[in-house]
Amino acid sequence: MKSYVDLNKINSPADIKNMSIDQLTALAAEMRSALIRKLSAHGGHVGPNLGMIEATIALHYVFNMPVDKLVFDVSHQSYSHKMLTGRMKAFTDPAHYNDVTGFTDPDESPLYDLFSIGHTSTSLALASGLAKARDLEGGKENVIAVIGDASLGGGEAFEGLNYGSTLGTNFIVVVNDNNMSIAENHGGIYADLRLLRNSCGTAEPNLFRAFGYDYRYVHYGNDLRRLIDAFSDVKDIDHPVVVHINTMKGMGLPIAEANKERFHFSAPFDPKSGAPLNMKVATAETYTDVFANRMLDLMSTDKSIVVVNAGTPSAVGFTPARRAEAGKRFVDVGIAEQMGVGMTSGLAKGGIRPVFAVVDTFLQRAYDQLSHDIAINRQPVVVVEFHTGLYAMNDETHLGFFDIAMAGNIPRFNMLAPTSKEEYLAMLNWATGQKEQPVIIRTPGGALISDPNRELLDDYSVPRYEIARQGSRIALIGAGNFFYLMSKAADELEKKGYTPTVINPRCISDLDTRTLDTLADYDLVITAEDGIVDGGFGQKVASYLGTSPVKVVNLGLRKEFLNCYKATDIAKECGLTPEAIAETADTLLK
Amino acid sequence: MKSYVDLNKINSPADIKNMSIDQLTALAAEMRSALIRKLSAHGGHVGPNLGMIEATIALHYVFNMPVDKLVFDVSHQSYSHKMLTGRMKAFTDPAHYNDVTGFTDPDESPLYDLFSIGHTSTSLALASGLAKARDLEGGKENVIAVIGDASLGGGEAFEGLNYGSTLGTNFIVVVNDNNMSIAENHGGIYADLRLLRNSCGTAEPNLFRAFGYDYRYVHYGNDLRRLIDAFSDVKDIDHPVVVHINTMKGMGLPIAEANKERFHFSAPFDPKSGAPLNMKVATAETYTDVFANRMLDLMSTDKSIVVVNAGTPSAVGFTPARRAEAGKRFVDVGIAEQMGVGMTSGLAKGGIRPVFAVVDTFLQRAYDQLSHDIAINRQPVVVVEFHTGLYAMNDETHLGFFDIAMAGNIPRFNMLAPTSKEEYLAMLNWATGQKEQPVIIRTPGGALISDPNRELLDDYSVPRYEIARQGSRIALIGAGNFFYLMSKAADELEKKGYTPTVINPRCISDLDTRTLDTLADYDLVITAEDGIVDGGFGQKVASYLGTSPVKVVNLGLRKEFLNCYKATDIAKECGLTPEAIAETADTLLK
Repeated sequence: MKSYVDLNKINSPADIKNMSIDQLTALAAEMRSALIRKLSAHGGHVGPNLGMIEATIALHYVFNMPVDKLVFDVSHQSYSHKMLTGRMKAFTDPAHYNDVTGFTDPDESPLYDLFSIGHTSTSLALASGLAKARDLEGGKENVIAVIGDASLGGGEAFEGLNYGSTLGTNFIVVVNDNNMSIAENHGGIYADLRLLRNSCGTAEPNLFRAFGYDYRYVHYGNDLRRLIDAFSDVKDIDHPVVVHINTMKGMGLPIAEANKERFHFSAPFDPKSGAPLNMKVATAETYTDVFANRMLDLMSTDKSIVVVNAGTPSAVGFTPARRAEAGKRFVDVGIAEQMGVGMTSGLAKGGIRPVFAVVDTFLQRAYDQLSHDIAINRQPVVVVEFHTGLYAMNDETHLGFFDIAMAGNIPRFNMLAPTSKEEYLAMLNWATGQKEQPVIIRTPGGALISDPNRELLDDYSVPRYEIARQGSRIALIGAGNFFYLMSKAADELEKKGYTPTVINPRCISDLDTRTLDTLADYDLVITAEDGIVDGGFGQKVASYLGTSPVKVVNLGLRKEFLNCYKATDIAKECGLTPEAIAETADTLLK
Repeated sequence: MKSYVDLNKINSPADIKNMSIDQLTALAAEMRSALIRKLSAHGGHVGPNLGMIEATIALHYVFNMPVDKLVFDVSHQSYSHKMLTGRMKAFTDPAHYNDVTGFTDPDESPLYDLFSIGHTSTSLALASGLAKARDLEGGKENVIAVIGDASLGGGEAFEGLNYGSTLGTNFIVVVNDNNMSIAENHGGIYADLRLLRNSCGTAEPNLFRAFGYDYRYVHYGNDLRRLIDAFSDVKDIDHPVVVHINTMKGMGLPIAEANKERFHFSAPFDPKSGAPLNMKVATAETYTDVFANRMLDLMSTDKSIVVVNAGTPSAVGFTPARRAEAGKRFVDVGIAEQMGVGMTSGLAKGGIRPVFAVVDTFLQRAYDQLSHDIAINRQPVVVVEFHTGLYAMNDETHLGFFDIAMAGNIPRFNMLAPTSKEEYLAMLNWATGQKEQPVIIRTPGGALISDPNRELLDDYSVPRYEIARQGSRIALIGAGNFFYLMSKAADELEKKGYTPTVINPRCISDLDTRTLDTLADYDLVITAEDGIVDGGFGQKVASYLGTSPVKVVNLGLRKEFLNCYKATDIAKECGLTPEAIAETADTLLK
């Protein structure tokens, strides 16, 4: 008789401690069914979560959370963990699907979710801090970091792996090896991981032993009994150990097992065919398409163009088909932004015209490389950012509105904010054709805007603002996609009898002082940018005009982390609507 | 008969190509004597350069620079390279000692110095870009990256090591293993390097093979013949290879061989005794002393205080004696800022009160960890920066004036700028005693200032400006050490008949709007900060007061990289003298 487990009776890990292997196996099956139902209806990280069900059950069965400490890397694979730690309903009841985020989150579960995590490669550093704290305080609990093979290739993970082995005490690293990044893995260690898998963990060289770890290998990483045996074996161990488990990404959903990149993360889909459920979204042209197609065009005539990316090829428009077309001229270095940015400096020095295509939030991982490797060395690398601003990813760990303050204040980088598809292409063309300066092009967030009315330039090397509408008294300067917000605000103001000047600044890292000087005797200048106001473009304008009689208002986002927010709500709160802007101006001028 | 080589006849690598081994050995001896003369009289990186003389000669003897491409990591060990590439006089003639910088520099030698480098762990990424460019362009040259064992522990180096092996073509990594960082090495890979040294490169696990490299080992890494043989063996190799050479830091200068940390970098010293030549400098109390002593005091009563540092312990006041006193409560994670910052978040979560002590320029390497690992997770980590501002290190790769723009715009970080020793201690006390928020304390650059007149607070959690002098019409807001600049400017203005208000803002990441509101009807507000104006504290003030009639001037440094600059010259150029500030105010108010 088949065992049956009622998921809705699982309220905490205590509820699985007394289960038999048969019951745990039934539990895994029920959890898998529930996950497939939720993931296909609601979207999410499909492959990573389906691959980790058994390992998560085994971890909670063997260890004693929350006394023992468990840290997931990226934590996009933590759905099973959430199911077992008091949040089952969010996976079984469609009315509650939105009760949880896609990552571990102390606000959801202060006991079981130790950190809010969304960037890769952090688990070893965070867990080593927990282990060190335990040792200083005389504690005895197990500290466990779970890290995927792809995350292992990031600098912070390597640094953590290197340090963790020197703790000399209990420190358990579970390497979840599914032989996949979001796309393919890239790097020499992956040959070694393959060697270890193929030899059932017996071969040399062994990366983990080279880093100073004791080592266990579990070949059937979706087999509960073997996982439980392996974890039981290392429980309460008195030194650092790696448990290398060989899991299958997308396990149990044939379409995800067969299409690992497509189903790493997916919007709602038909679980049989894998077809997206909302076909409307897929038909509109996007900036990522525009970017990738233009790069392929350029590559066809200019053999020196190379696009470099760090582990997120599809997010920058380089789908598998486009990667095949680009061939050697598309380089995915794996989850290694520092390396990727540093490499582009070397490529430029070697005569190549490198374009570093990056998801905004991950560029944060290469601040020093932007400054030291590129800018100090005056290499004409072109960085193209995606998922920028308010209208992009809305997890607190994946926000795209800190980049202007971060990168716009690094000397020599010319940071450009295109308003529209046409201007985006003009900026890409200029940037990839010049050899004078490093450039950052901020791909607008939100839907693509086509606008034939923007004045395009052949040369964006020096800040030159576009006066899109010449008026008087009030100037509205709208950067990037917020240019259109300002245009609409101008319409509102015209209804009130004003004739505002509307400006597209193009460049957001430096000032066009000649144009700004013409505004010194205006009554009011309002700037708006799709990023935080602090440290941003508008504050440079306010500072420059600080001794002029003109009033200056800087609009943009607040310096804060937002989580699972609604963009339209935030826009309203920050006064970023045409009506609010017109009202602000009207009030100040009365 | 002993060979003799006239150093001043060496103008390029061509001049050593036809030398015999005896002549090369004589060359090495002459270079060593010249280096010891210059280093002891002039100061510089003693140990790294003395250890690399033979390897550098062998590289230039075997390879064909500048056709072959050579990239040094950190490049603080490149003095011998400079001697062999047209810059000998800067090492033999005291009148020309200042002709060269301490790092590779394309401005000095566009042919032989490919990059301006000063941060660790970049060489593999930069060189992999050169190698990839070569492969795309059909070139045949050798690409060689030289990296020390300590630099190997940084994230960008690991990422580069991981990627480089996948190039599949000529890529030669020379690992200069002297078994030392600036201080001790920290990390599991160092046990493996020791194992490899002790087994003459034959043992497993082999870290470099685990990363996918072919491997050679040279046990006598200061033996020219063996080095030449090893480099000749890998010249024109068709795949990635690591040449692991075992060198002696400080080789040939007994005092440096015996005191490797003290002589990693040294100011002028007596080459026999090692005693510093300018004793005056050593007697004045410094902020690093104040910091480290206070930390030791706190540790003696509060067992939860832990200081974490990434590979620069002495630069943050933790000399070997103080490290011994701190014991387990001082943690040096090696050159691994990301790991170090991430770990502090884990420590705080585990109940410890962590202090991350860091040289300002290296905090750039952990931007994402400050944001993601600490701030998003609201962990009350205290970051203490050293070598900040204009009056600190003056190499373009080691500048300390970008941090306000970088870190002051990360949400939730309370960035404090103490003016004086007394205020520094008050802020350290408060920050390490609270559990509410992450804090950055910016240790002032320049000489320590003791000032009993500052109003100290028990709580710095909310921005509260100190009105140090109450006046009218003009307000001078001086952050950190620039408070005293503003006080002197106020004295100048008083001579002119003004009565300025002088303000110490204490906090430079957020505004005390209540105090600023009292300035709205002033005629003029001038801010000054020891960092770039762009993205800094003053621009927040200008933005906030943008709709008030008061004029605002933001003073500080320009957004640019400076190299080997004189602080007083730059201060003048930027209007950062009491006289210039008084003049600015006077002009604007007339």
